Amino acid sequence: MTQFDFEIKASDGAARAGVLQTPRGEIRTPAFMPVGTAGTVKALYTDQVRQSGADILLGNTYHLMLRPGPERLKALGGLHKFMGWDGPILTDSGGFQVWSLAKLRKMDAEGVTFQSHIDGSKHRLTPARSIEIQADCIGADISMQLDECTDFPCSHEEAARSLELSLKWGAASKAAFGVRETQALFGIVQGSNYPDLRQRSAEGVTAQGFDGYALGGLAVGEGHEQMCASIEMAVPFLPADRPRYVMGIGKPVDLIEAVARGIDMFDCVLPTRSGRHGQAWTWDGPINIKNAKHAEDLRPLDEAVDCPASRDYSRAYLHHLFKAGEHLGAMVLSWHNLAFFGALTARMRAEIAAGTFEAFRAKYADKWAGTRSQPRSETDGRFKPG
Amino acid sequence: MTQFDFEIKASDGAARAGVLQTPRGEIRTPAFMPVGTAGTVKALYTDQVRQSGADILLGNTYHLMLRPGPERLKALGGLHKFMGWDGPILTDSGGFQVWSLAKLRKMDAEGVTFQSHIDGSKHRLTPARSIEIQADCIGADISMQLDECTDFPCSHEEAARSLELSLKWGAASKAAFGVRETQALFGIVQGSNYPDLRQRSAEGVTAQGFDGYALGGLAVGEGHEQMCASIEMAVPFLPADRPRYVMGIGKPVDLIEAVARGIDMFDCVLPTRSGRHGQAWTWDGPINIKNAKHAEDLRPLDEAVDCPASRDYSRAYLHHLFKAGEHLGAMVLSWHNLAFFGALTARMRAEIAAGTFEAFRAKYADKWAGTRSQPRSETDGRFKPG
Repeated sequence: MTQFDFEIKASDGAARAGVLQTPRGEIRTPAFMPVGTAGTVKALYTDQVRQSGADILLGNTYHLMLRPGPERLKALGGLHKFMGWDGPILTDSGGFQVWSLAKLRKMDAEGVTFQSHIDGSKHRLTPARSIEIQADCIGADISMQLDECTDFPCSHEEAARSLELSLKWGAASKAAFGVRETQALFGIVQGSNYPDLRQRSAEGVTAQGFDGYALGGLAVGEGHEQMCASIEMAVPFLPADRPRYVMGIGKPVDLIEAVARGIDMFDCVLPTRSGRHGQAWTWDGPINIKNAKHAEDLRPLDEAVDCPASRDYSRAYLHHLFKAGEHLGAMVLSWHNLAFFGALTARMRAEIAAGTFEAFRAKYADKWAGTRSQPRSETDGRFKPG
Repeated sequence: MTQFDFEIKASDGAARAGVLQTPRGEIRTPAFMPVGTAGTVKALYTDQVRQSGADILLGNTYHLMLRPGPERLKALGGLHKFMGWDGPILTDSGGFQVWSLAKLRKMDAEGVTFQSHIDGSKHRLTPARSIEIQADCIGADISMQLDECTDFPCSHEEAARSLELSLKWGAASKAAFGVRETQALFGIVQGSNYPDLRQRSAEGVTAQGFDGYALGGLAVGEGHEQMCASIEMAVPFLPADRPRYVMGIGKPVDLIEAVARGIDMFDCVLPTRSGRHGQAWTWDGPINIKNAKHAEDLRPLDEAVDCPASRDYSRAYLHHLFKAGEHLGAMVLSWHNLAFFGALTARMRAEIAAGTFEAFRAKYADKWAGTRSQPRSETDGRFKPG
């Protein structure tokens, strides 16, 4: 068994349940990775994150390189020690946040130069520098190759140009990473919503050979249907014996449909972000706790979720905390949401093992159909121009 | 033993260590009561509050009467159930917050009419209504009489007029409270910084007969020295066999000096408020964690405090959390500060029991001398006009 052995324990249709070994412990898949953007999963203690069922966290290279800074983080002993998390950590490459957050970014063939959204300071990210920050400074157990993210929608020509750059950066990332005993490197498939480009990218990345394969360029406004379609375009061209990870998703309905298409890993800020804004995800669908109808409701958020946050606080109390702007509201809803995502992935693993995943998927895909994301229009205010 | 039996277990000079019995558990004195203004000790879970050494919480009648509202709170089963705290709760009368927060307040001989600072809605508080809200709706174990708070400084004439009104309201509060088996009522001594008035008020309140006696009108800008002096004016005229409580204090140095003058109970927002703003109180004095000197300091806040918040997070990490505006910073510092206040009161109880309190007081009064509050000037911007 190698350090990052991936064993598929059960499968049901395209869905699979497995275990990815890491030197810092097992990752049970399908796995949801809570996002600890700036070295903390927002409003949660790390033992709550662990108890919610998370085996692995995601850290954001972009945020950590700006603050506290990669060399300082290295001097302090790396991210695990810094934030008090002894399980595995996966880091993104920083590319996506440079694309979505940084000011005045300037791409060239070797990398990207950008200004910090915090203080305007100038930084540069190349494949080698991204790997250095992730693997050597942060100390990530799993690093991601640097890639370029395209806007959505994106022309075929632009998507084709971009994925070739990402392939080049993947090779450069792999070269910089070298051979490591206790750390892994994942490649990233791009190609927007074009079947030929997703195939080209998946084949190219697979040919380079990584410890795992991610799909990028999703959850950028394409909507639920297109997201599912893009997954279907790429999965057949990825090796079956390595983990597959869709970056940045998603809602519970997204996770179910992605697992049904052979995906093993996810990360998303949704549980904590929506928790801070008063949205609780439950087996009966999402709840807006700020709604007046909860003001005298003594029921907990979801008794079926085995977490104090889900069981021990009345909706009336949580409603009050949000109306009063109290920290504890965001703390409890973030905790509950993470526990719900933990329960959802545990349930998917159990349904796959039992060979009943399709019935489970059908039930909840229907029940939660109203939560599917719609495609973002070029004319709506949220569309991000290139 | 009655329901609110108060036993003084040890004394050392004027300082005393004891136990106040309540139907919901013992209160070890000297006791610090964390403030749960709106039904939550800000940014803390109730089990953290309990683990910090707090035996009793304070709830604010003013805030709870505005939101969620007394009748709704009663319908939901009272504050203990609402916030998940099964220990004793003391509520203030609402008078102080009407004086300090409400808009357009109008006093008359029978009570006060005011507008909510939240939504401008009109409310009225009388002695009987305050008791109804505290004892019947909130379900407080210990209620406070309604009193009038005077500004500081305050003329002798005004302080004399006001304390007579507070005595009248004390009698009306007591009449409204009636005889209760499982709930207690405390009276409040006013009189500003005038020895004759503090004596007059203490004697008047004592003659009415309450389960405990509080000193009001302190921590309103008079400064540390005047606060100590005002305590000395009143204590000789209060019964030795009932608990004495100074409302709204204070810093660690205030607690030590008040205990040295025979005070048993305290409440203050300081640990949580200063924690939210990046100030940590330690045996070595206060720390501003936002200061750049902590950016690479791997030491915890205070290893001598037996709390995960005090021991398990480096100053470098907490500095980072505050710089990044992360919730966890406020959560950990609030938790640590409460644990420090719990450790401080536990230490005072132990020093009194050992007969070594005076040496302890002298050491820390000196060490923390720089943290003493100065008298607020009438001309400084923080002075609150009458």
